[in-house]
Amino acid sequence: MIKIGLLGLGTVGSGVYSILEKHKENLKSKVGTELRIEKILVKDIDKKRDIDFDKALLTNNVEDILENPEIDLIVELIGGEEPAYQYIVQALKNGKAVVTANKLLIARYGQEIMGLAAEKGVSVSFEASVAGGIPIIRPLRESFAANKIERIYGILNGTTNYILTKMTEEGQDFQLALKEAQKLGYAESDPSSDISGTDAAYKIAILSSLAYETAIDIKDVHIEGIENIEIEDIELAKELGYLIKLLAISKFTPDGIDIRVHPAFIPEYHPLASVNDVYNAIYLYGDSVGDVMLYGQGAGQMPTASAVVADIIQASKEIYYGSPDINGHIYKNDHKVKDISQVHNSFYLRLQVKDKPGVLARIAEVLGRNQVSLASVIQKHRYAPVVPIVLVTHQVKEENLQKSIAEFKNLDEVIAINNIIRVEEL
Amino acid sequence: MIKIGLLGLGTVGSGVYSILEKHKENLKSKVGTELRIEKILVKDIDKKRDIDFDKALLTNNVEDILENPEIDLIVELIGGEEPAYQYIVQALKNGKAVVTANKLLIARYGQEIMGLAAEKGVSVSFEASVAGGIPIIRPLRESFAANKIERIYGILNGTTNYILTKMTEEGQDFQLALKEAQKLGYAESDPSSDISGTDAAYKIAILSSLAYETAIDIKDVHIEGIENIEIEDIELAKELGYLIKLLAISKFTPDGIDIRVHPAFIPEYHPLASVNDVYNAIYLYGDSVGDVMLYGQGAGQMPTASAVVADIIQASKEIYYGSPDINGHIYKNDHKVKDISQVHNSFYLRLQVKDKPGVLARIAEVLGRNQVSLASVIQKHRYAPVVPIVLVTHQVKEENLQKSIAEFKNLDEVIAINNIIRVEEL
Repeated sequence: MIKIGLLGLGTVGSGVYSILEKHKENLKSKVGTELRIEKILVKDIDKKRDIDFDKALLTNNVEDILENPEIDLIVELIGGEEPAYQYIVQALKNGKAVVTANKLLIARYGQEIMGLAAEKGVSVSFEASVAGGIPIIRPLRESFAANKIERIYGILNGTTNYILTKMTEEGQDFQLALKEAQKLGYAESDPSSDISGTDAAYKIAILSSLAYETAIDIKDVHIEGIENIEIEDIELAKELGYLIKLLAISKFTPDGIDIRVHPAFIPEYHPLASVNDVYNAIYLYGDSVGDVMLYGQGAGQMPTASAVVADIIQASKEIYYGSPDINGHIYKNDHKVKDISQVHNSFYLRLQVKDKPGVLARIAEVLGRNQVSLASVIQKHRYAPVVPIVLVTHQVKEENLQKSIAEFKNLDEVIAINNIIRVEEL
Repeated sequence: MIKIGLLGLGTVGSGVYSILEKHKENLKSKVGTELRIEKILVKDIDKKRDIDFDKALLTNNVEDILENPEIDLIVELIGGEEPAYQYIVQALKNGKAVVTANKLLIARYGQEIMGLAAEKGVSVSFEASVAGGIPIIRPLRESFAANKIERIYGILNGTTNYILTKMTEEGQDFQLALKEAQKLGYAESDPSSDISGTDAAYKIAILSSLAYETAIDIKDVHIEGIENIEIEDIELAKELGYLIKLLAISKFTPDGIDIRVHPAFIPEYHPLASVNDVYNAIYLYGDSVGDVMLYGQGAGQMPTASAVVADIIQASKEIYYGSPDINGHIYKNDHKVKDISQVHNSFYLRLQVKDKPGVLARIAEVLGRNQVSLASVIQKHRYAPVVPIVLVTHQVKEENLQKSIAEFKNLDEVIAINNIIRVEEL
């Protein structure tokens, strides 16, 4: 029998509990022995809960779990940095295997946590930390182990993908779509971590760390959110044959890892373009396997619980058969992250300019001087003193584009720079 | 060190050899010990080969591998039923782990092979047997282990998907698209196993066996190929908002497993609709995880070799740490396959009828009497003695539809039944 200590009985915790109960017999046959939840850490033992269970399982003293020599495995579903971090470290030091869904912890302390686990001969699993029910952590470590991963593109945040889908399909503006997402429970009352791209940044940092076996500091990830995307941008993207998605990007290049999260134009015919609503997807390229896409629900109680239980099964088997999978976990390389200023991209620029002769010439002159060449220009006659102009550049170095933007700000003819969005041909 | 015997050095075998050489150091660090190819079985030792290697590795005597006590693991890449089957059985009996890409063997003898492996305490892995480089076998067994899988839809054959893509995008007819596929090496000179749906049927049988833990006899799978699909059908599908794909379908229903391979109309906005050319995809639904899609290259040297090497890594770890993963392999249930006559579906029918009053009434009468109700009718006036008519039914029982078709054949007004294609709303 494998005895499990559950830390946290919130949404995902309850889901994990339900699956372990509902599939009890099946799981026993899969692992070879019974899985039993021995103790559950909660804040309030007397709180009313939706699920039915033996109240004797509950404790509000974490030592009942972490210092209980009977418990083989802890499942951390508290989230956030503290006290989750302390609990995991203490559990590992006591020789317990750890399953966690905590992206923040794995992104920040993955190296240290996995190192400690290896030292203690136990496993740490975190499939649910990235993209909920979509299998990606284990595939990266196992299924694609024969590959050098060269590129990863992810739609890794359901909230922002839902908002962008509503904006694209129904023409809702950002604020309205956000409100609807909040009403449906897809966005939190403080949605800033999702909207700003931070949530997706933790996830792409974890995937990149595994793919390149290099610890990636979240501070090195260039992050932009979707708060400035306007309906005009989405309409213009369509006109040009693209959709706008919040894209997490990671490319292994000879001069460093190009890793970033930002809204991007992607071609409308690409498989990632059909990833809508709260769905997530990871599209990657490995030198042997070629292009692969994994698609599914990136959040939600049961998809996330499904991934947590998959980890519990695997970790339990390893405990039962006495062979923790402690290899290939530690980031043994030391690749550097490339500064965003040195990255090449194609850009979409939407400006407002004075409607008078020579404006386009002035703009083109600034771009030309900064080695930014244009792929297309959309200028629609509006019979107004101020008119919109849309430019799409060829591949240019980010710092050259930024220099041009700085100069635009000093141009009399340029009234406003409405938006700058990178174009990814994928 | 793990010593490997390779059976077969064809396209995939050479790919496996290259990966094991190219990623030698990396694989050693992943497994914890060196992987060494000890012997390779080939027909002709003196044949010229593209890859560079020590000729002393080659043998044309299979006993050098199967009876060599030094060899821990055999990798079967000969394909077909015999002698591959005998070799695998002999290897297992001698306590060697087996990795194979052989879909036919696993579909026909999976139960027996896995039983023998369990008895001998060794593992059998076959990730590459379905959908090449796409991870699906291991995810089904591990990542989705906490789920009851309820439905699987697969585009599992690259040749037919390439042909249908060409027909859809470029208006090529079947014969022309097939010839082009052959020229590009996507179709074999005898393409019958792909075109007829047989290849996809083996693959969906394997996936269903794993998902429902029930041995499925390939003879129980209803199979139709794409040879009768005409440009007219593809055009009409588009008009109705669908695309035609060769779909492998498997549904777990209370009155049996509904498993079949046939061309199907699928909604143009569904993620499977964007799976084009030689790409494959598996779209499944699990009770916890919800909808998941896995997409990638279903065939080809390196994608397939990538999956084989992933299995080699996993099997080698298990050997090295002394814990073969022999659980959850054996089909412990005995679910029955539902006869196709009892399956409910919506159908597209394309007929040619005499252009005279009352024809539609006669057809509608036959359908009504057989409890087949219509969702839509397309009848275009052509000023010709014989005109096409297209019917789409609501969900009806297959046997009722077939009775109607039999009656149509006796109707004077019906000149020809051009095509009958199932409509899957997914």
